[in-house]
Amino acid sequence: MASTPQPRTGIDLAETAELAAQLRVDSVRSSTSAGSGHPTSSMSAADLLAVLIGRHLRYDWDDPRGDANDHLIFSKGHASPLLYSVYKAAGVVSDKELMTGYRRFGARLEGHPTPALPWVDVATGSLGQGLPDGVGVALAGKYLDQIPYRVWVLCGDSEMAEGSIWEALDKASYYQLSNLIAIIDINRLGQRGPTELQWDLGAYARRAEAFGARVLTIDGHDLAEIDQALTTAGDTSGHQPTVVLARTIKGRGFSEVENQNGWHGKPFPEDMAERAIAELGGERHLTVRGPRPSPAPHPATPHPATPQPQAAAPGGAGTAGPAATYSLGDKVATRKAYGDALVALGAANPRVVALDGEVSNSTHADEFARAYPGRYFEMFIAEQQLVAAAVGLSVRHYVPFASTFAAFFTRAYDFIRMAAISQANVRLAGSHAGVEIGADGPSQMALEDLAMMRAVHGSTVLYPSDATSAAALVHEMASQAGVSYLRTTRGGYPVLYGAGETFPIGGSKVLRSSQRDVVTLIGAGVTLHACLAAADRLAADDIHARVIDLYSIKPIDTETLVAAAAVTSGRLVVAEDHHPEGGLGSAISDALLEAGPQKLWMTHLAVREMPGSGTSDELMAAAGIDAQHIESAARDLLNAV
Amino acid sequence: MASTPQPRTGIDLAETAELAAQLRVDSVRSSTSAGSGHPTSSMSAADLLAVLIGRHLRYDWDDPRGDANDHLIFSKGHASPLLYSVYKAAGVVSDKELMTGYRRFGARLEGHPTPALPWVDVATGSLGQGLPDGVGVALAGKYLDQIPYRVWVLCGDSEMAEGSIWEALDKASYYQLSNLIAIIDINRLGQRGPTELQWDLGAYARRAEAFGARVLTIDGHDLAEIDQALTTAGDTSGHQPTVVLARTIKGRGFSEVENQNGWHGKPFPEDMAERAIAELGGERHLTVRGPRPSPAPHPATPHPATPQPQAAAPGGAGTAGPAATYSLGDKVATRKAYGDALVALGAANPRVVALDGEVSNSTHADEFARAYPGRYFEMFIAEQQLVAAAVGLSVRHYVPFASTFAAFFTRAYDFIRMAAISQANVRLAGSHAGVEIGADGPSQMALEDLAMMRAVHGSTVLYPSDATSAAALVHEMASQAGVSYLRTTRGGYPVLYGAGETFPIGGSKVLRSSQRDVVTLIGAGVTLHACLAAADRLAADDIHARVIDLYSIKPIDTETLVAAAAVTSGRLVVAEDHHPEGGLGSAISDALLEAGPQKLWMTHLAVREMPGSGTSDELMAAAGIDAQHIESAARDLLNAV
Repeated sequence: MASTPQPRTGIDLAETAELAAQLRVDSVRSSTSAGSGHPTSSMSAADLLAVLIGRHLRYDWDDPRGDANDHLIFSKGHASPLLYSVYKAAGVVSDKELMTGYRRFGARLEGHPTPALPWVDVATGSLGQGLPDGVGVALAGKYLDQIPYRVWVLCGDSEMAEGSIWEALDKASYYQLSNLIAIIDINRLGQRGPTELQWDLGAYARRAEAFGARVLTIDGHDLAEIDQALTTAGDTSGHQPTVVLARTIKGRGFSEVENQNGWHGKPFPEDMAERAIAELGGERHLTVRGPRPSPAPHPATPHPATPQPQAAAPGGAGTAGPAATYSLGDKVATRKAYGDALVALGAANPRVVALDGEVSNSTHADEFARAYPGRYFEMFIAEQQLVAAAVGLSVRHYVPFASTFAAFFTRAYDFIRMAAISQANVRLAGSHAGVEIGADGPSQMALEDLAMMRAVHGSTVLYPSDATSAAALVHEMASQAGVSYLRTTRGGYPVLYGAGETFPIGGSKVLRSSQRDVVTLIGAGVTLHACLAAADRLAADDIHARVIDLYSIKPIDTETLVAAAAVTSGRLVVAEDHHPEGGLGSAISDALLEAGPQKLWMTHLAVREMPGSGTSDELMAAAGIDAQHIESAARDLLNAV
Repeated sequence: MASTPQPRTGIDLAETAELAAQLRVDSVRSSTSAGSGHPTSSMSAADLLAVLIGRHLRYDWDDPRGDANDHLIFSKGHASPLLYSVYKAAGVVSDKELMTGYRRFGARLEGHPTPALPWVDVATGSLGQGLPDGVGVALAGKYLDQIPYRVWVLCGDSEMAEGSIWEALDKASYYQLSNLIAIIDINRLGQRGPTELQWDLGAYARRAEAFGARVLTIDGHDLAEIDQALTTAGDTSGHQPTVVLARTIKGRGFSEVENQNGWHGKPFPEDMAERAIAELGGERHLTVRGPRPSPAPHPATPHPATPQPQAAAPGGAGTAGPAATYSLGDKVATRKAYGDALVALGAANPRVVALDGEVSNSTHADEFARAYPGRYFEMFIAEQQLVAAAVGLSVRHYVPFASTFAAFFTRAYDFIRMAAISQANVRLAGSHAGVEIGADGPSQMALEDLAMMRAVHGSTVLYPSDATSAAALVHEMASQAGVSYLRTTRGGYPVLYGAGETFPIGGSKVLRSSQRDVVTLIGAGVTLHACLAAADRLAADDIHARVIDLYSIKPIDTETLVAAAAVTSGRLVVAEDHHPEGGLGSAISDALLEAGPQKLWMTHLAVREMPGSGTSDELMAAAGIDAQHIESAARDLLNAV
């Protein structure tokens, strides 16, 4: 806590002018001291923020995790000097930290906001994400928490070109999120020049209204107009989200740069900073607190502490409900097991929620939707918003599971990557993976998803081969921190495991093993069944193959892989229903090569040509990932010199 | 060519009813014969297509590559039965092929359209992509070809929830693409139930108008209304794109399923199909041709044959212009070399075009924009549309280079994946990669891009370490088929190569080498410089390290890697400014493990913790990818038992 004067509660409108000047001065000072940052993008929004935090944002700065607090999200994350200057004004960041910590190594005042700061809900900086994330928080507030907090999102005008902004407004109006307020800082200038619409506020208004928002158009430097608009916006009794369109001037307050192109993302040199500060009336060190929230009208559903990345223990027994059980040998699709397990989880844990992208009858999320309609959110065909809503729900400590076809999570990769930076705990389930889907063709075949998901920081990547393991892994995901991903298969395949079996994340199953093993066959998902069939064929010739079900692709069970390689003289056959780069095979080769000096030779069967339509069997054979190809690859390794 | 009656030229409106019935019947027949597909989604749009192809689409079916042809894109790719029925009606696909080839293995009538068919411009099936692709084709028509073809895009109503549709309309109106017509088949029902807006055509109209389109609202089953609207839409003399909002009925024409939920993506069983065909008046086998295009008013800029994936030879000398040269040791950023090379290419080849996502002053695409403003398209902050426009330009045989920060290509991953299925030749340049960027923090750091791009089918992934190689690789990309990706670095690093050096795709450079090498250091981009510094430090202790510049990550120079591993007893240190999964290290381990039996031990230095802000040096040291960590890793490998 800064050693500043005792904060007051709320300020009158006249005082917001002083506060705005301080926010501008501090934006200039912090960015100049750091030698980088975006002062002009901060100055345009300083009046908006002064009025917002001084008179409207209901926030207990001493209890940033308080359930009743309003939320403040900087979708224009590059205006971090302004946000951190707000924190100084609130008395939670010292002037010293602002001047020596901004953008410095090891410090928490990063170039773009992240939840390294307790007042930040989500990381921003990839534009067009803060508002979609805010939709998720607002969904929680209106439908789950049922607490009258508001979600205030500051957007830049450049990011209005991102389709994700319109996905967000579409969903905000569909779900009547009157607790969501987007404030658009329309300063006319982007990074390299004017924005598309510049100061055509009418065009913005028509778009936002057409997407179902209540629109308030103001001069973003007129404090009274701002105050009036935020008063209106903060009244959540209606049924629409609010968009405040604020006409502003980039660099406002420093005449040398006001409304000038060429000053995006550039701190002022020392001499210019001095002139700016002088023109703004000099340094100030006000501490200002706005209204505090009323206590939540009823206690929110109790929630456990949000698990921290790295800290979550595998297991998740605390949230596991009664699991469905499957009979050995029955053909059950892993996507069906996903739906079953989700329903069981929902029974056991009221904080489990589900979302889907208009394919819930394929992913089997519809089973959860029928069982717990109040905890299911249909996101229609808007995968970016699907993931962003999950991130927003995780801000409010819910346990979101979002599903769509595995291929279509590629649409949301930027959001998934940012979810990791946001330290969000989100669970993604992608169905219909690989050529196994058959006739629909390559547009519907996820063949890049494992690579994409593995590369996300701190992610968990799971690919079960049967219903028992799929259901167990869904339960594991519920208590897993960070971004976790489950890949499920379209078709039904035999149940391999009995109900008592456990599937810890980071583990694997050795399904065939003997001291006479001469080759190791490794599969996951659909190819595990092909590995088993290949092993049976080899066994007919008295060739013993070890078979590993590598259901946990990240983290990976290096120990079992190394042991298998040692026993089988380094001979490995890996088969995966994925392009050859970055998936199961890469996970194995990465793990083995780092494990120490070994002699290794791996035949890697993967989808190397562009597939077309066909049956599952035809396409797996054509890709060379079926039992026959695995068997041949094993024989070739054994016959090689 | 089908053995059908001689095609006529155009049909009168009364005849379109017969044609529409045939399209419906054939959609039913083909999907029932295949046992999968989307008949009801085809039947809703059959009247629209009958009028379009019979009376408006100017297309020479005998010359699908003709420059003057209109373009027809099925953004709702799942309506492939309708599209293929259109091809039968045009006489270019036989009834036999339609009945025995649809969705079958090895056949070209895939579940969703791909350019395996000569009349298909782009693959669709991931919703919300056909219209953005169409924007690219229309940009080519209006600004480059200057040929009055029209781009007709059939969209579904469900896909209007995708933000990319609004990115497309936004850019279409910004660029005044009066040659672009989106026809929205508003049949009210999605896969799992009603769409968000159902039949609220007013809401769609307000949105499309607010985004700058001319909107025509019609009954999509009234042939005269359709004809009137398409006549209006086809007049391109205005300055707006046109959106035709057609109220339709899913399953139209078969009373058992009309407007019924539960029939999405389901072929009719045989008996239902018989009743449907009977209700529709039975089979027909009309061959119908609409208007042909006038010859192009002037010859389009001559274009070479589009390179085919797999077929392009490395080299690209044919399009290489005068290259910028750099002095050894000068510090030059590879992103600057990108800009230089792009300008040189632009001088040499008039079909080279550039696009950027509002960061051209950072990526250095602005140099091309200044040199060739007529061949530069600003896409603002809309990365999905950025990539889609490049795909559309490649349809018209241009040589597009699209650039933004490497991190933000994650926003467009679904589009990049689909570009590969579309057989598009697009070149992507991502700048500001990795922790090297410094103070801006993780939201701006591409740490997943190499994994993402490697996993794309047929992709080329390049990561040069100096300006000379960067410029040379940009020239190589110009003649490269498929999706190629160049990763560039923010900071300036010493020029390593002289102007005479060549950098074939798939090659590498061995920068330090002797018979006494005991360890191999491998880097690319910024880490190559760290590898060189580490080698110098090791050399001071008489430890000889081989150093490899692996500028071509895909395809990869396996031969050089295997040789280095053999000489250095399998000891490898790999350093990359990327998360550990799927990037440089995985590319190397994948290649080595498949190369044959070898003893290997690799220390893989990569960005394993979430970075924050700081200087490049601080962040590279913290990630353990700087010279000191590489040196230590090499010593540890040598000291290990």
